[in-house]
Amino acid sequence: MVQYNPKDWIVFIFRFHKSDTFRKLIPMMLFIGAYTGGVGYLELEYWKLSQKNHLSNIPVMHSMLGFVISLLLVFRTNTAYDRWWEGRKLWGALVNNSRNLAMKLSVILKEEHDRAYFRKLIPGYASILSKHLTDVETSLQLYEGIDLDNHKHRPNQVAKMMYQKITDLHEQKKITGDQLIILNAELQSFTDICGACERIKNTPIPYSYSAFIKKFIFFYIMTLPFGYVFSLGYYAIPVVIFIFYVLASLELIAEEIEDPFGFDANDLPIEKISANIKKHVEEII
Amino acid sequence: MVQYNPKDWIVFIFRFHKSDTFRKLIPMMLFIGAYTGGVGYLELEYWKLSQKNHLSNIPVMHSMLGFVISLLLVFRTNTAYDRWWEGRKLWGALVNNSRNLAMKLSVILKEEHDRAYFRKLIPGYASILSKHLTDVETSLQLYEGIDLDNHKHRPNQVAKMMYQKITDLHEQKKITGDQLIILNAELQSFTDICGACERIKNTPIPYSYSAFIKKFIFFYIMTLPFGYVFSLGYYAIPVVIFIFYVLASLELIAEEIEDPFGFDANDLPIEKISANIKKHVEEII
Amino acid sequence: MVQYNPKDWIVFIFRFHKSDTFRKLIPMMLFIGAYTGGVGYLELEYWKLSQKNHLSNIPVMHSMLGFVISLLLVFRTNTAYDRWWEGRKLWGALVNNSRNLAMKLSVILKEEHDRAYFRKLIPGYASILSKHLTDVETSLQLYEGIDLDNHKHRPNQVAKMMYQKITDLHEQKKITGDQLIILNAELQSFTDICGACERIKNTPIPYSYSAFIKKFIFFYIMTLPFGYVFSLGYYAIPVVIFIFYVLASLELIAEEIEDPFGFDANDLPIEKISANIKKHVEEII
Amino acid sequence: MVQYNPKDWIVFIFRFHKSDTFRKLIPMMLFIGAYTGGVGYLELEYWKLSQKNHLSNIPVMHSMLGFVISLLLVFRTNTAYDRWWEGRKLWGALVNNSRNLAMKLSVILKEEHDRAYFRKLIPGYASILSKHLTDVETSLQLYEGIDLDNHKHRPNQVAKMMYQKITDLHEQKKITGDQLIILNAELQSFTDICGACERIKNTPIPYSYSAFIKKFIFFYIMTLPFGYVFSLGYYAIPVVIFIFYVLASLELIAEEIEDPFGFDANDLPIEKISANIKKHVEEII
Amino acid sequence: MVQYNPKDWIVFIFRFHKSDTFRKLIPMMLFIGAYTGGVGYLELEYWKLSQKNHLSNIPVMHSMLGFVISLLLVFRTNTAYDRWWEGRKLWGALVNNSRNLAMKLSVILKEEHDRAYFRKLIPGYASILSKHLTDVETSLQLYEGIDLDNHKHRPNQVAKMMYQKITDLHEQKKITGDQLIILNAELQSFTDICGACERIKNTPIPYSYSAFIKKFIFFYIMTLPFGYVFSLGYYAIPVVIFIFYVLASLELIAEEIEDPFGFDANDLPIEKISANIKKHVEEII
Repeated sequence: MVQYNPKDWIVFIFRFHKSDTFRKLIPMMLFIGAYTGGVGYLELEYWKLSQKNHLSNIPVMHSMLGFVISLLLVFRTNTAYDRWWEGRKLWGALVNNSRNLAMKLSVILKEEHDRAYFRKLIPGYASILSKHLTDVETSLQLYEGIDLDNHKHRPNQVAKMMYQKITDLHEQKKITGDQLIILNAELQSFTDICGACERIKNTPIPYSYSAFIKKFIFFYIMTLPFGYVFSLGYYAIPVVIFIFYVLASLELIAEEIEDPFGFDANDLPIEKISANIKKHVEEII
Repeated sequence: MVQYNPKDWIVFIFRFHKSDTFRKLIPMMLFIGAYTGGVGYLELEYWKLSQKNHLSNIPVMHSMLGFVISLLLVFRTNTAYDRWWEGRKLWGALVNNSRNLAMKLSVILKEEHDRAYFRKLIPGYASILSKHLTDVETSLQLYEGIDLDNHKHRPNQVAKMMYQKITDLHEQKKITGDQLIILNAELQSFTDICGACERIKNTPIPYSYSAFIKKFIFFYIMTLPFGYVFSLGYYAIPVVIFIFYVLASLELIAEEIEDPFGFDANDLPIEKISANIKKHVEEII
Repeated sequence: MVQYNPKDWIVFIFRFHKSDTFRKLIPMMLFIGAYTGGVGYLELEYWKLSQKNHLSNIPVMHSMLGFVISLLLVFRTNTAYDRWWEGRKLWGALVNNSRNLAMKLSVILKEEHDRAYFRKLIPGYASILSKHLTDVETSLQLYEGIDLDNHKHRPNQVAKMMYQKITDLHEQKKITGDQLIILNAELQSFTDICGACERIKNTPIPYSYSAFIKKFIFFYIMTLPFGYVFSLGYYAIPVVIFIFYVLASLELIAEEIEDPFGFDANDLPIEKISANIKKHVEEII
Repeated sequence: MVQYNPKDWIVFIFRFHKSDTFRKLIPMMLFIGAYTGGVGYLELEYWKLSQKNHLSNIPVMHSMLGFVISLLLVFRTNTAYDRWWEGRKLWGALVNNSRNLAMKLSVILKEEHDRAYFRKLIPGYASILSKHLTDVETSLQLYEGIDLDNHKHRPNQVAKMMYQKITDLHEQKKITGDQLIILNAELQSFTDICGACERIKNTPIPYSYSAFIKKFIFFYIMTLPFGYVFSLGYYAIPVVIFIFYVLASLELIAEEIEDPFGFDANDLPIEKISANIKKHVEEII
Repeated sequence: MVQYNPKDWIVFIFRFHKSDTFRKLIPMMLFIGAYTGGVGYLELEYWKLSQKNHLSNIPVMHSMLGFVISLLLVFRTNTAYDRWWEGRKLWGALVNNSRNLAMKLSVILKEEHDRAYFRKLIPGYASILSKHLTDVETSLQLYEGIDLDNHKHRPNQVAKMMYQKITDLHEQKKITGDQLIILNAELQSFTDICGACERIKNTPIPYSYSAFIKKFIFFYIMTLPFGYVFSLGYYAIPVVIFIFYVLASLELIAEEIEDPFGFDANDLPIEKISANIKKHVEEII
């Protein structure tokens, strides 16, 4: 996660962080610029099309579709952000449940070796889940014809160990039935959180939307110079580049954050969160 | 579900997957093109209407209604996507609950044959639910005058078997009262998930919206050439086709994903999820 | 509820179902057409206003306000749809809870006459609730000065009978304390669902919004012909009719679905759902 | 709450209810009209500015900012409506919980005088909460430097009395431990609902938004006539008035409903709901 | 939190509160004004560019992108407001849970010294959480390479003390098992609320969005004068300033409220809420 001060405008405007879409888009922007220049040269100097040519009215299409594309990109932005924020909430819930479980067990369990068991296991779950989520196999779970997973599902193994230990302690009367009921919510939350993270990881937005939005941006930008060179001349070059930069940036950022469990600059710092869980749980129990 | 890499633009733009709306719309696009050409021929060459003809101002209507139609299609997109994502969440919850139930039972039940019973029944529920949801009768449950369902509601039968077994084990003191309380949440979730999936399946968005949006797109596109041929000449043909492509694609994708339990390319891979549940539950219990 | 295939465009476009807003709006559309024609006649032929008359610039107002009115209608559409969908979810929850309660009781209760009691009472609740919600008195509960309700609140009576029976069975030791806790969630859900449906039924969106949107559409449409006849001539007649059709349809559909418990064509089929609950509960218990 | 039939357009359009924004805005509309007339007189007749004066292009600014202001007002409308609807849901939950608590206690408690206690106390909570919420002190709780509240927090006192009675009955063995667990959800909901209503009451939307939106509308409307009089002449007077009416109405309605617990015409009828709770609880217990 | 009457327009429009974006933006607005004047002087008087220069058509770009920037700023406004409102809800939940826990314990605990313990501890949690959230270290938890936190996590320490005391009382039989279950929800809510507040505090919106929006506003405003001076002359100065004021204000307000736990004028009054919790809890227990 990139550390920043949201109120420092100068830095935002003039610093081009390596995750900045401006840097990523430079090659494409140069290409779009050359393309626009080429279209302008052809229409204005080679074919010498008159200002009355019907092509000069093409922008009516762009202004009409400008609404649709803006709204679609905002839809895209919203869904990507929701997924990112849901991921953050899930890891926040993991923090909370780890802390609560540690607190409850720390006051219920009288023997140090029992507490030591959970002191290791609770942060262990977060740590294994963080590895599980950055594993490429996890993101391929739902495709047909792919049969990986030679090894067992490791977060499940850890969760089962916790259930096993709690049940053992219950049978040894170290945990009463009422306490069992109280501990249940935190225990089952681990698996719920794991499943929800897997869902975000292995289910991108429907292929059709992704394909449609990219095709739409492509055709939109590619047809933009035909009309613009009549009214803007070679100024159409920076104009088309800037419009491309805006539209493509929104799609690029959405692509980056819609899978919040990865190694992109904006992805969630789940390893750091795991480390914090470890630190806090050890403080508590 | 279509497997794809969201960051691979070239593939998205130039590959026309069989579920791509571009391929599905080709016949209609050809028709719209011919129609626009016909309107252009009539207005420009047959009747030779002058540029001052009032028809040339028709686009003021289209630009005004352009807001409404864009916003409506985004509303449509949002609701369709929400249904699809809710379906995905429900199946995610089924995964979580199957896992949690399996874990709890695996540590509570001491006898192998009891565990074996649930090893079969838990994944069985997912598998039967997935068949139930792709059954055409399920989507017709709410219409008057249709009386199918000779056979019983099968997911309910499986859920009842689980309740029965748990109650039997409780009476045999293999499960304590406190454990019964703990198991309850997962048990009732099966039926809740089934009901919620049925709701999505058998209740499309209100007929009036569906009918209105389609009528609106139709009239909008059909009247578009009348004004456009004055300013765009025969360039109106690709322009109208492109606008049609954009509007119709949004409606088509929404139609496809608003019922996420089917056999469309973007539908949820519920059979694969069932298979994963089977695999993981067998690992656990 | 209207049965339809969302993918059959031809039917949607050319069939005018009796609930279609097109049919409902025909008288108003004819009036608007005549009105526009009259304005056109006055301005163009009677007063022979020149194209430079300031009236011809009135559309600048319409295009500015076009954005506000579109967004407002989408706000209206969203809130109406949310109420409709919330209503559907509540009845889905009623289905789920009826099934779960039936399953739990069917395995807990050993005596047929106890089960028979609930076999009648559980579907009875749904059936009485469906009558309660279509009763006109229910929608008037919150107005001052209206004092109806000579009879008791019938869903409450049925819910209380269920609580009474469960408590009796608990006192007769046929239901243990732990089972009582498990049954509680379903029991209280009946009253929660009833209350939430009443809330949707008796609280329309604030009067001010409803009044404002209707006034806004009216003034908007009524002033539209003044400027349009200059640029569109008598073509303004179909144009104004079409714009009116779009704006009024959105408001009409929203009006219809914002109260989902009625007899409009798009309303929820709560009687059919009640019948399904009866069928499934009888299968289970 | 205003009683109305959403389908009766004629009434909505031609009746100016006392809560109608049209009536409230009349003085301002007259002022805006006079102001626009004055600007028109100055520009057109006193200074006789030519049509080519740069001022005539001011509307490019208004059409650009027209998007922003429309979207902002819809944001305002959405948040205000959400608060209003959340308030309605909270009071709906109060109805549900009062009914459920009454039902549960009516079957658990065998002695009339115990039931009589709750027959008085349950509706008493709703009634005291309704007074508490319309008390001006409640809306000032969060401001520094204001130290009112000489008296105790009355809803808390009533909630505590209920907890006290339930605990006493539990100690007298009239309520078992399992029943105590079942009653807990309803009991704590009272205080949760009270706190949530207080939150809506004492936390308006951030000052900055409120101030910004009002300043924006003011500058937007005040600069509108400068350009419009060139294209619209004195027709600018009704046009500017109408645009002002639309923008200001949205803000006015939002102001009214964002605090749903007051005495405005659109506020929630919480006294009537309290009376209904009393009626229904007395029927039940 | 700023105290204000939402219905007092005059104050809003003419008072420039110290948190008003108008005051904060004055230096930038002066700069933008000078810049626009400079561009105007160059284009109109120094280079004497003709009205037909292609630069005069630059505004077609601004009107196309006007839609995107408006939607983006509304997206920004929505997410910032959601975070602010979620923060408010969390502190509202803290109020509710503190009250409910105090009420439950006040009726369960018979001995004054036990009650006294919680009379101090419950408000203590809110007070320590409020300090914890305004601590700068809290907002840096998730960045790599930063290792602060020499001291322990203080809210966790307090929460653990509460768990410890409850468990002790349970072992002393002052609290029954059923009561333990009832108390559990409030106890674990403290840590859940703390974790959720930390999440809002230490996770701003993704860096990419923040950087992109600021760059976009900057380029948008900087290119605005080039075209506007042709149509507006020196009137472009106030016009560009006003557009800048609107766009920058939205971003500024969003920056301020997206972290609701700070010392900005619009931030949540968490110290005051803590004081209220103290006051009410002491009244109750």
